[in-house]
Amino acid sequence: MADVASSPSDPIARPSAALTAHPRATTDSQARTSASSDRSGFVPPSLPDAVIQCLSVNDVVDALRIAHAHQVPIVPRGAGTGLAAGASARAGEVVVDLSQMDQILDIDPVEMIAIVQPGVLNAAVNAAAAEYGLFYAPDPASTAICSIGGNIATNAGGMWCAKYGVTRESVLGLRVVLADGRILRTGRNTIKGVTGYDLNALFVGSEGTLGIVVEATLRLRPRPVRTETLAAYFPDIETAGRAASAITAARIQPAILELMDGPTMEAVDQAEGTSHRSLGGAFLLAQTDGYGAHLELDEIVRAIEPFATSVNRAGDAAEAASLVKARRDAIPALEKLGRVSIGDIAVPRNKLAEAFSGLEEIAARNHVRIFSVAHAADGNLHPMIVVAPGESITEGPAKAALADMFHLAQRLGGTLTGEHGVGLLKREWIREELGATSLDIQHAIKTVLDPTRILNPGKGI
Amino acid sequence: MADVASSPSDPIARPSAALTAHPRATTDSQARTSASSDRSGFVPPSLPDAVIQCLSVNDVVDALRIAHAHQVPIVPRGAGTGLAAGASARAGEVVVDLSQMDQILDIDPVEMIAIVQPGVLNAAVNAAAAEYGLFYAPDPASTAICSIGGNIATNAGGMWCAKYGVTRESVLGLRVVLADGRILRTGRNTIKGVTGYDLNALFVGSEGTLGIVVEATLRLRPRPVRTETLAAYFPDIETAGRAASAITAARIQPAILELMDGPTMEAVDQAEGTSHRSLGGAFLLAQTDGYGAHLELDEIVRAIEPFATSVNRAGDAAEAASLVKARRDAIPALEKLGRVSIGDIAVPRNKLAEAFSGLEEIAARNHVRIFSVAHAADGNLHPMIVVAPGESITEGPAKAALADMFHLAQRLGGTLTGEHGVGLLKREWIREELGATSLDIQHAIKTVLDPTRILNPGKGI
Repeated sequence: MADVASSPSDPIARPSAALTAHPRATTDSQARTSASSDRSGFVPPSLPDAVIQCLSVNDVVDALRIAHAHQVPIVPRGAGTGLAAGASARAGEVVVDLSQMDQILDIDPVEMIAIVQPGVLNAAVNAAAAEYGLFYAPDPASTAICSIGGNIATNAGGMWCAKYGVTRESVLGLRVVLADGRILRTGRNTIKGVTGYDLNALFVGSEGTLGIVVEATLRLRPRPVRTETLAAYFPDIETAGRAASAITAARIQPAILELMDGPTMEAVDQAEGTSHRSLGGAFLLAQTDGYGAHLELDEIVRAIEPFATSVNRAGDAAEAASLVKARRDAIPALEKLGRVSIGDIAVPRNKLAEAFSGLEEIAARNHVRIFSVAHAADGNLHPMIVVAPGESITEGPAKAALADMFHLAQRLGGTLTGEHGVGLLKREWIREELGATSLDIQHAIKTVLDPTRILNPGKGI
Repeated sequence: MADVASSPSDPIARPSAALTAHPRATTDSQARTSASSDRSGFVPPSLPDAVIQCLSVNDVVDALRIAHAHQVPIVPRGAGTGLAAGASARAGEVVVDLSQMDQILDIDPVEMIAIVQPGVLNAAVNAAAAEYGLFYAPDPASTAICSIGGNIATNAGGMWCAKYGVTRESVLGLRVVLADGRILRTGRNTIKGVTGYDLNALFVGSEGTLGIVVEATLRLRPRPVRTETLAAYFPDIETAGRAASAITAARIQPAILELMDGPTMEAVDQAEGTSHRSLGGAFLLAQTDGYGAHLELDEIVRAIEPFATSVNRAGDAAEAASLVKARRDAIPALEKLGRVSIGDIAVPRNKLAEAFSGLEEIAARNHVRIFSVAHAADGNLHPMIVVAPGESITEGPAKAALADMFHLAQRLGGTLTGEHGVGLLKREWIREELGATSLDIQHAIKTVLDPTRILNPGKGI
């Protein structure tokens, strides 16, 4: 792969100059600055050469045709809310910005599908679906600010995917502009279909390295007729982890099952004026849905009572919403404390308590503060390393802690990234997780789709 | 692709001779006969040269290493219950038979996963899971006789996938022997994970053309605490189709929603001694599950009552089982009437009634008898062409009707195959469905994984 950082410093001499003539290109420094990074905390060493602010599929096609012909490295970009530096861009690279392609093209309420452009926000899809009694299941914590294109690039999850699956399970079809500007349609408009290989799933989670999604057909689902919500409090996070495993072991399928440790509760309380930390040293949010939601929540109460110091069932929708909000507010609350590096390991569901213990050891060993939340029903933990505003999250103790987290996940039979992606930040560990054969094949597939390797170089595999 | 039929007729001169030295190879003519076809009704023109009856991963590795070196076309085979001639084999080809690799290697009841060999029967996995209060969701009608390896090869569905997804959603990880004998692991043991491209989904549904699955990690789910079942009867299948669409439109998520037309009901009644046909001209089976199953079934009754001539709620588990059995028995019942060609189109769910009308036209136009069942919640229809025992199902009127079915599905925005696969039988229509760009990319991916194209030549893409 070309080392773009070593390109000549005169932008005119760079291959990217071929793209400045694109009718939607800007080299304005403010646009280049805001298109250079995401919400991972990673600060790229330089700015991209230009930003193409696409308004149409043709804009994307034109940009990629030129990039392909002139070997210009391209960084696709949606809302820029990624947490793995998958959309970070630097000198020599050109950003293809899809955030203005943000329309919902069609909602078919009978067929329960939505056809959308990649820049539409996740929450906007859900708001539109709600008018028809439907919802879009993948709901990252960043739902209000993240775009569907980025959700697809990372195979994003969220709280509801405990029951309803991740982005891959909700994407029926895609329209993709390939590296050479050809347009590919993957998947279909029907729920089932097995003609040919599953290229749809290949693009979901490919972090912008195989093509640029310009349209997606999304599966919507009926909004549950009722939901029931509780918050439970425990002496410590290991005990809460055991309670979560007890729910799984009791064969209950909650729609939401979320954990938050004591330090994170304190940060949320401070930011939001709540008082969760006074009720215990760890917080568990559980929601059931469907016709028997109340009966299923009874079972959850039965499973966790032996572990809990307090169990509060939400009395009404407003109370339920405020409990869900406490969990959603965790990341913004921590961002007020310093720079945050958000981990994303996943472990077998019965290893949650062990994972939390391991994280405490990692914090102590590396002298860093780690705050943890987890999608407990999936075994997906987000340990967040918070450092002082001036400190690095990609070097020194924060990096050492990130490496330790990966090895903890490996030791417990888990994975480096559950739903945020590899991006730039986790690339050095993928060979260890995937093995040489898998990585060889993945690179060969990359070569099929992007033979000159212009798409999001240095990210993902 | 080499035309294997044109190989020299002397088996010794053929490349396949390199494989007869394999310790598990047999050239016994009975073994070759029973390994030559599946349950699609397609009769191959000749027998394969040999069958390798594998007992271990090493047997598969050895076979593929030799095949790769000597350019021997390989046909992977499980239980041989496929419906698209995906496992049919002919002269020049060697069958790699996995049916004796049929062990359940591990069930982890806390993590809710099973690790199995490819030859294990679908029903055996479910029986083992049931001991822990769990179930494996993909349940083809052939559950008692089909193997997991074949389910993975075709991305098999079944009745429960209306609510719980198809095979792809239940396969967490695979161990695959590649064409050159290398071993690849795809996926993971955790529910979530996005490191690298989704090679797991690439192999699921690839019809034995990309590698041979030798181990699978399957997701199990909690058995529902209760289920409620009904059978409803309608004047005709179009009305039943409208009733099924009304259920979807009412935002209900049944676990099972199956349709059967009048002629199929008659065949089942005749084979099983039941009397469904006396209650109406079309049959709808609906099952709900979970804590509120009874409440959800009430809603289904409300949605279909305007259309139905009779609605019978099952009073107990035995009655429910007999209603489910009626639907499961449809294919065996039709096989008593003649040779059966089983269609597998999928259409948008609100186009079911139109699809049934279209099928009646196709039957009349081609002078064939078409019997129809459908997984109504997925829009997946199985129109079955039944011809006299001596007649062809791959030529003449049966083939013309199959082509018409595909074009019907296309016209309604659907697909050639919902869950059975392309195999040999539907290959001529895939370019029309997928388009040139998609097919080009799929062939390039095939070349990455099987550069000398020895795996299941002529099948799938």
